[in-house]
Parts: sequence; structure tokens; C-alpha cells
Amino acid sequence: MFDGLQTLPQPMVVRIDGARITGLWPEAGFDPAQAEGCREAGRGGLVTPGLVDCHTHLVFGGSRAGEFERRLEGVSYAEIARAGGGILSTVRATRAASAHALFEAALPRLQALVDDGVTTVEIKSGYALDVAGELKMLRVARRLGQPEEGGLPVRVTTTLLGAHALPPEFTSDADGYIDQVCERMIPTAAAEGLADAVDVFCEGIAFSPAQCERVFQAAHHHGLAIKVHAEQLSNLGGAALAARYGALSADHLEYLDEAGVQAMAAAGTVGVLLPGAFLTLRETQLPPVELLRCHGVPIALATDANPGSSPLFMPTLMLNLACTLFRLTPREALAGMTAHGARALGLAEIGRIAVGQRADLCVWDVAHSAELAYAVQPGRLRQRVFGGRITHCRTPEAR
Amino acid sequence: MFDGLQTLPQPMVVRIDGARITGLWPEAGFDPAQAEGCREAGRGGLVTPGLVDCHTHLVFGGSRAGEFERRLEGVSYAEIARAGGGILSTVRATRAASAHALFEAALPRLQALVDDGVTTVEIKSGYALDVAGELKMLRVARRLGQPEEGGLPVRVTTTLLGAHALPPEFTSDADGYIDQVCERMIPTAAAEGLADAVDVFCEGIAFSPAQCERVFQAAHHHGLAIKVHAEQLSNLGGAALAARYGALSADHLEYLDEAGVQAMAAAGTVGVLLPGAFLTLRETQLPPVELLRCHGVPIALATDANPGSSPLFMPTLMLNLACTLFRLTPREALAGMTAHGARALGLAEIGRIAVGQRADLCVWDVAHSAELAYAVQPGRLRQRVFGGRITHCRTPEAR
Ligand SMILES: [Zn+2]
Ligand SMILES: [Zn+2]
Repeated sequence: MFDGLQTLPQPMVVRIDGARITGLWPEAGFDPAQAEGCREAGRGGLVTPGLVDCHTHLVFGGSRAGEFERRLEGVSYAEIARAGGGILSTVRATRAASAHALFEAALPRLQALVDDGVTTVEIKSGYALDVAGELKMLRVARRLGQPEEGGLPVRVTTTLLGAHALPPEFTSDADGYIDQVCERMIPTAAAEGLADAVDVFCEGIAFSPAQCERVFQAAHHHGLAIKVHAEQLSNLGGAALAARYGALSADHLEYLDEAGVQAMAAAGTVGVLLPGAFLTLRETQLPPVELLRCHGVPIALATDANPGSSPLFMPTLMLNLACTLFRLTPREALAGMTAHGARALGLAEIGRIAVGQRADLCVWDVAHSAELAYAVQPGRLRQRVFGGRITHCRTPEAR
Repeated sequence: MFDGLQTLPQPMVVRIDGARITGLWPEAGFDPAQAEGCREAGRGGLVTPGLVDCHTHLVFGGSRAGEFERRLEGVSYAEIARAGGGILSTVRATRAASAHALFEAALPRLQALVDDGVTTVEIKSGYALDVAGELKMLRVARRLGQPEEGGLPVRVTTTLLGAHALPPEFTSDADGYIDQVCERMIPTAAAEGLADAVDVFCEGIAFSPAQCERVFQAAHHHGLAIKVHAEQLSNLGGAALAARYGALSADHLEYLDEAGVQAMAAAGTVGVLLPGAFLTLRETQLPPVELLRCHGVPIALATDANPGSSPLFMPTLMLNLACTLFRLTPREALAGMTAHGARALGLAEIGRIAVGQRADLCVWDVAHSAELAYAVQPGRLRQRVFGGRITHCRTPEAR
């Protein structure tokens, strides 16, 4: 399950023309004539594909730090919920925030990912839970990847997660809310080109498989790719259901069983593991890594960066946590944030170092790729190349 | 247990003269005449004391990333030990390395801590396990805190941890090795002013309480402060023993019992919790946080940055892990890396924002102090003040 070069196996020369990799030679046998007219841009260090963070919720209003503190000071979850806490506090703040405010709040979070090596990031909606608000979130997400609009040099893919939670207006009418998602959010997002994919949270505390299936059908109908939050807290068969609809990925998966793994393998659905949420929720049920391996399901990794269950804006931390908590090997972890992350987004041209691929690369100050997962040490990203252009982890002015 | 200001409770003016805080006023009632002749240096953001990382093993030779990878690829611990892995591989590499090589290898690790807000760091020896090598490590540690010698602007305190593990020359003669520690290492380190404290690893796999006591006596005799690695894997009573010798701190403490807590409380010994090692070793026994609270033992936090059980060079990650894993409150976590960390090093002049304290401060781009522990997000350190001088997390040239 290693579909491409995650790191260069020996000292090599990478030729970049424009935004693509156009040549790859072992340095030993390299004929300098092949570099005629080229500018040498970087040397030494470990070269990997740019990191792909294929599951984030970077756009949201408000802060849940106060709630985090109150819980640790002994306030019960029920009391916090009564006081309007939890995801619905994020929904209120996100609805109330202007697109500009959401953009400004998300920018430093995205900058943290970019500074840690991310060149492609998926951003989900899902904290407005009404038509206008979900579209607002998706527009903000798109703009975050547009440097000419004040965004950053990073590829952003967007996912409509209207079916993330039940909004207060639809308490006791989940089917009515799913109508809204299918009949208004998905068609509008598709027509305006605001979403690359559609996601749903299939769980006892969220939406049933039957409700999720309606969302998948609508996404299919409008030509949008499918993703699913599934088997995080219990096994409802959401991953297998999504796989039947050709889902790009099923994400979380702690409670996934072998039938689900087989369905994913048959459909080519990527399994996205989210160790940040596992850690933050102090989950003890481990995802079925060995089954995923045996059945050849590609394993991707992501930050799940979000204000509640994973306020962790650091992809290289996920490499470490995936090894420590899920016992992935460092190679699997790196593939999970490069080639397999790209596959979880349906992007064939990124995530590997190969001729024809987009020139999205990271140069790290480490001697061996295992170091990236082994140590958590900010500041090791020496160079970041995005679409053939060298960027730094942060501009000097920002310091 | 909150001995001083960890953050400013309202907008305030901090006056710094030279290396010290000389004034502190609520901004509302501030009379500008008091600032006559002053240069305004920073405004806005959350101000905390500079972070204190009171337990690290930053100086070591070699890398254990390959071993980390092999373990995850299924090689057993016994096989790795037979192949010369584990701590003894670090000992071999550290002995073989020149002081210059050790310094150069440690510098980026220390830079990562400094970039994350550290203004005081303790560095232990303990990977050479012979007289010359332990002194070499301590000299390297001292130099790391000397900018004029190529080090960084950070206060380094040094701890002789000769009794960290049994060197291969003394297999089956632990008492003979303790003789070396007591009769040669401690006297020489004390005479040359290379160590501020002495530490021992009191554990079944390391040294017995009786052996540790001999080390404490020697440290006492030579006027060095005492610290102990205790109750990490089992309860041998090492913390209580160290407390009887007036130890500054007992560190790890997962298996500490109430009698040990009481002994620490009586002696004023700080409890240093190390969530990075807890995470990396997938420990499940939690340290007795509630007992420490009840008995008024100050709780400090540190990275335990080391090549084996905590290759995590990021103090703000420890704030998050201490809350998530040990259920500390964000305030306790911050006190653990400021005032209580300073106390674990016997330093009265740092770790708080108060008149007379050293002007070691961090300015963070967060709205509330709970955000520091809540989110893991590199890049939020806006300004770092060390001894009254503004430093940045990293120089632009280094990017
Ligand atoms: Zn999610
Ligand atoms: Zn230690």
C-alpha cells in the first residue's frame, strides 16, 4: 500500500518546470546538461511531498477555550450544555460572524498548518447549519486558498458538511433538516461551485444511516464527491454505506468492523484516521489498523482541526500520534499525510514525488524520514515548495 | 497553590528597567509621568511569564528514530536491545561525540523550546555514564545558554544525572558505579561549578533507594540541590526519600502514594509531571493529581525532552497534554510551566509577573490564557522578553 515516493530513497535531483515535476534523477548519475537554463533552488535535507491535511474544520466562529477550562474545573457536560456550550455555541458564533470575521479568525490557524508543511488542505463547513451560513463558510474556505484575496499559498478543497449536527430550529425534525441539506444546500453549493465534496456525520448523536443515504444520493445527483464521518463512537455501518456510493473516504473509524473494512476495500474508499480527536476525547477503542492493512484499504491521516474535539493545528503532531497511539509505522504515517491524503480528496496529481506531479514539496532539516514522526519539534521545515514556487514557513515580517 | 501572577488579570502596564520588572500598574489608572524616559516595547496580546522547562535531557548523541521505526515495524524490544538499542545506544553515541558535535545537535532542539516561549530550561547529563563524559555533557549544557559562545538567549540550569542508568562497564556492580558517581562525578562537577543540582533515577530498572540515598548524601555534602526521577514505573518511595533530603523536586510520580505526597508536602518538594513520557510510553497509571492538590504540593510540568521516552520538543504541547491526559486545569498547567517550574529549580526570581522579578516574559496572540493549553498551534508567540531584552521566536535569517 505504498503508491508512490513519499521520500527520495537516495540523493536525487528533482527538476521543476512551472508548477510540475518534470524530471527525477539519481544525483550520482546526473548529467548537468539536463539542468541547462535551470536555477538551483535547494539542496540537502529530506524532501517529501507537501503535506495533505484531508480533514479539517478550520472555519468557525468563537472560541471553546472557556468551555475547555470550565470542564477541567469540574463543571459537568450537562451544565455546560445547559449554559449553551458544546457545538451549538460554535454554531451560534459562526452564524453571527461575518464572512470577513470568519476569514480573519481562520487565517492564523491555516498559517500554522502551512508553516508545518501543508500544501493541500480540505476545509469543511458544518457550523452554520442553515443554507446561507453553510455557503458563507464555504466561500470563506475558498478564499483562504486565494493569495490574491488575502489567503495563503495553499490548495484548499471544500466540503459541504451541512449534516454535521441538528440545528436548534429542527430539534425533533431531523428529516426536515435533511430535506434542507438535500434540496437547498447541496444544489446551491454545486451550482455555485462552492463545494468539492459532501460529508455527513453518521452517528447516534447525529444522523442515521437512512438520513445519510439521502444526502449521498443528493450529492451523487449533483456530481459531488462523498465523504463520511463514521464509526467514531459506535458502529452504524456508515462507512460501508458510503462505500456503496463510491465515497472518497470514511473518517474516524474507531468502531469499524471487518465487513465495513471489506466494503471500503471493494470501493477503493480511503480510511482517514484522526488521532487528534482520539487523544482529545480520551478514546480507548483503537481503529482497526491491522484489518485496514490486510484488506488493502489506504490509510490517510488528518488533523481534524476543530474547536471541540481536536483543537490541534499541527499536522506533524499527527504523524507522531498516529505512530504512538495507533501503532502506524512512520512510513505509513507519512503516506497518510501525502499520497493517501491526496487520494482521500480525489486528487491524483499531488501527494507523490514523480514526474508529472504538481511540484508541492517540503524540505526538512532531518536525516531520515522516520524523524518526522518520531520527534515533535516545530521549526524543522526548511523550505516549502507550492506549485513550483518556493515559500517559507512564515514570512519574516510576521514574526 | 497559585504563588503569583501567571497572567495579567486586566490590561496593565509593565515597567522594565534593565533585566527586572520595576513597575506594574492597571492601565486604566496609569499616570504617563511614570513612564518618562521609557520606550514602549509591546502592546496587546496575552502576557505570561517566560516558560520554564524544568526537566529536559536535551544533550545527547545519535538518534533513536530508527529504533522507533523498527519497533513500529514489529521488531521486539528484546531484539532491539540485543542489537544494542535503547538507552545504551544513546550512551555509545554520546560518549563518541565531541563536545562540539553534542552542542550542534542540541542547538536546534533548544531553539524549538525557545521559539515556543521557554526562557529557562534545565538540562540534565546522564547519557555518558563516565566521569569525563558526564562533565562533557554538563559543559555543553552550560554553553547552550551562553549567546557569546554560540548558545541562545535562555537561562540554562544544569543537573548531574550520573545515576541515570548502569553503564556497561558496571553490569552487576551498581554499587561500584554509585561509588564513581559519589566520589568522582559529584565532587568534580561541584568543584568546577558545572552542576546546579544532582538527580537520580530511583526505579527497579535503575537504582535502589539505598543507592539513591548515597547520591543524595554526596550531593548534600557538596552543596548541590537534589532532584529525583521517582515512582514512574513502580512505587519504591523515592520521592519521600528525596523529600527527606530536602529535594527541590520529585519527577514523573505516576505510582506515588499518599505517604509520598505527604512527605513531599512537608518538605516543600515540587511534583514535576511529565505528560510527554506518559503519552509516548502509553502509560495508563495516572499521577495522583488530586492528592497533590489536597496536600498543597506545587505541580510543575516539563517536556522531559529526551531521545527515548519523550522526543517532544514543544512545551506548549505539554500544557495541552497535562489538561487532556492528567486533567489539570489550564491555570494549573500554566503555573506548572512558570512559577512552579521555577520553584522546581530553586529559582525565586523568575516564573511570576511581579516587581523585582526578572523580566522574562512572553506575549502571545491569544485572547485568554486558557487558549494556550486548549489549542496546540505553533506560531502564537508574538514576542519573547528575556532579561528585559526583546527576542523573537526565531531570527528571520534562520527561516
Ligand atoms: Zn471532523
Ligand atoms: Zn527525565
